Amino acid sequence: MAQKAAKNLRRVREEKPLVHNITNYVVMNYTANALLACGASPVMAHAAEEVEEMVSLAKALVLNIGTLSPAWIEAMEKAGRRANELHVPVILDPVGAGATRLRTDSAKQLIEALSIDVIRGNASEILSLIDKKSGIVTKGVDSVHTVDEVTERAMILAKEIGTTLAITGVIDLITNGERVYRVMNGHALMGTVTGTGCTATAMIGAFLTVCANSMEAAATALSYFGLAGERAAGKTSSPGGFQIALLDALYEINEQELEAGAKIDV
Amino acid sequence: MAQKAAKNLRRVREEKPLVHNITNYVVMNYTANALLACGASPVMAHAAEEVEEMVSLAKALVLNIGTLSPAWIEAMEKAGRRANELHVPVILDPVGAGATRLRTDSAKQLIEALSIDVIRGNASEILSLIDKKSGIVTKGVDSVHTVDEVTERAMILAKEIGTTLAITGVIDLITNGERVYRVMNGHALMGTVTGTGCTATAMIGAFLTVCANSMEAAATALSYFGLAGERAAGKTSSPGGFQIALLDALYEINEQELEAGAKIDV
Amino acid sequence: MAQKAAKNLRRVREEKPLVHNITNYVVMNYTANALLACGASPVMAHAAEEVEEMVSLAKALVLNIGTLSPAWIEAMEKAGRRANELHVPVILDPVGAGATRLRTDSAKQLIEALSIDVIRGNASEILSLIDKKSGIVTKGVDSVHTVDEVTERAMILAKEIGTTLAITGVIDLITNGERVYRVMNGHALMGTVTGTGCTATAMIGAFLTVCANSMEAAATALSYFGLAGERAAGKTSSPGGFQIALLDALYEINEQELEAGAKIDV
Repeated sequence: MAQKAAKNLRRVREEKPLVHNITNYVVMNYTANALLACGASPVMAHAAEEVEEMVSLAKALVLNIGTLSPAWIEAMEKAGRRANELHVPVILDPVGAGATRLRTDSAKQLIEALSIDVIRGNASEILSLIDKKSGIVTKGVDSVHTVDEVTERAMILAKEIGTTLAITGVIDLITNGERVYRVMNGHALMGTVTGTGCTATAMIGAFLTVCANSMEAAATALSYFGLAGERAAGKTSSPGGFQIALLDALYEINEQELEAGAKIDV
Repeated sequence: MAQKAAKNLRRVREEKPLVHNITNYVVMNYTANALLACGASPVMAHAAEEVEEMVSLAKALVLNIGTLSPAWIEAMEKAGRRANELHVPVILDPVGAGATRLRTDSAKQLIEALSIDVIRGNASEILSLIDKKSGIVTKGVDSVHTVDEVTERAMILAKEIGTTLAITGVIDLITNGERVYRVMNGHALMGTVTGTGCTATAMIGAFLTVCANSMEAAATALSYFGLAGERAAGKTSSPGGFQIALLDALYEINEQELEAGAKIDV
Repeated sequence: MAQKAAKNLRRVREEKPLVHNITNYVVMNYTANALLACGASPVMAHAAEEVEEMVSLAKALVLNIGTLSPAWIEAMEKAGRRANELHVPVILDPVGAGATRLRTDSAKQLIEALSIDVIRGNASEILSLIDKKSGIVTKGVDSVHTVDEVTERAMILAKEIGTTLAITGVIDLITNGERVYRVMNGHALMGTVTGTGCTATAMIGAFLTVCANSMEAAATALSYFGLAGERAAGKTSSPGGFQIALLDALYEINEQELEAGAKIDV
């Protein structure tokens, strides 16, 4: 898998895929810069009047509900439907699902309406997507979930939704309901910069454009992004400098380094 | 007071309070990163459909009218009313009040509708909040106000509104109408980075979650933020690097350093 | 011209002109910081309720359709009409014109409704503004245009619209339909940071406040911004650090350095 990850990185840099983001205000700039650093070509567009046309030019669609409002969710659904028609892969980041009803409901509405290739979130966000009518029992979003506790429920949920779930944490968990990958890259300083989760989502979006399947795209993106975090943490130990060093690392990591550094447990 | 400031910093880092921001597009990312660097936990949410629920999870509410529109002001009022019901402290940054009628009126509307713990702005912004019917005579927002000129009018205004005013400048002035604190920390380079005022406001928001009263929260936040500016200015003398060094300094300053460096005149 | 550029830089720093931006979410923070680094005073305001009042306080108006929606275009038109009445110079950045109908139509609508001093974009964006009914034949926005191919069509278009066009690329082309300037400053790393084009536009906005004419403002801004890119590239070779070094360079470049480094071909 590390070898495949390296090959995927080369392809993103060769193809410079256009990634259409409908994302939150907080991370727009950082996400765009991370996509550029990775080799992809970002565009941000949210107007209902243009999202269908924009996504038809793109190779992937990133939906992120971090600063959602009803009009933006409608635009996300519109863009997602067109993406589905055109077989443009779609990734959803259900930021804050479980915290407010609007977020939980909006995430579920998008999952209901669209065929989504990957959903990336932390354990609380992902487990909040479990429907009451589902047989899965959750402890509620406030509980701290271990990777093992989460794995079983995530596999059931992934199968129910028919998607790949990427649950990030100290260890990242990726599952499509049948197989489970674990990614062990990353660094604690990533939690001190806003939008690193959202950026991980955008990275998966970039790799969805070149990967054979969603599991591979998520594993490539999360190991690459985590490795960049490790590299950045070698340069600085405070969050301001780290945020900049992380962009630099995304740009600097080459295929050989990714192949050597990716810690993906298949 | 410097000792109290140090204790307050420790508490923010221990409690990692959730700070709900309804703020402007320009500073969302920087503010979120500053709150993280300080030890708090930021969330940005502006939809009328969720602000009441979000603020009920938070320990402080930051309202900032920097890129306002009527719908956002309505959401701010809605969030603020709920915050008042739940005794969640509220801080207002009346960015650009005095410059346009929309800004002056929106700030006054929020002050009228809500019980606001702290209002932070520069002298022109704060003095623009003085109502015509009030007996206070202003020179108009274009005049340059000295701290001494401002102090008297600020004390009257604070009493009239029933709030704590934090007026930042070369010397920061804090008053609740009865007492006056002055904070002498800070550095001129802070004026070369956009949103440092807004970030000071968010810092006060973070300290409102742990302080006995608003005067202490404002004094702690402004001395801590100003000290971070001084420290950052020791690392670099240009605004790009300074902006990053300022985040690093917020993260790095420890209790002992704050106690030694805080220049609060009570 | 290099001498004039240096003088213009001094004047911006002396006068600290207020530049009113109605721009996209992605670049708001970076653009504001670049304007501050250059010596100007930025304000972002988009509400229809205040744009006329805000622009009446400003010395230039920057319109950027990077994350447009119909309500924002209306506000841009409103602000632009007032700017025209008050002889406040207006610059338009038609981000993504040619990519979607909304963007192409919105750019054309603003050009139709307003008297615009400068339009800055890349070759594809600018050539997408050529009307079907115009006699100019384009190859379509996907074609790669050389500066020479573009020059002739740009001169005709500039004359038709009655504006100055600033087409940025490896070599920047500036024309009002009669004269042509070329600016040879810049560095490839500028393409690895999001919003450098938008920032170039904002820089032209700043220099429109002090320049005798639009050609000179564009030439000054693009040589100064390009020189800052060259200087930043001497400090770092990765995009994270470069983005910061670019802000530093805008702040640090003095008149003598601009006069010596500006490569403007008149």
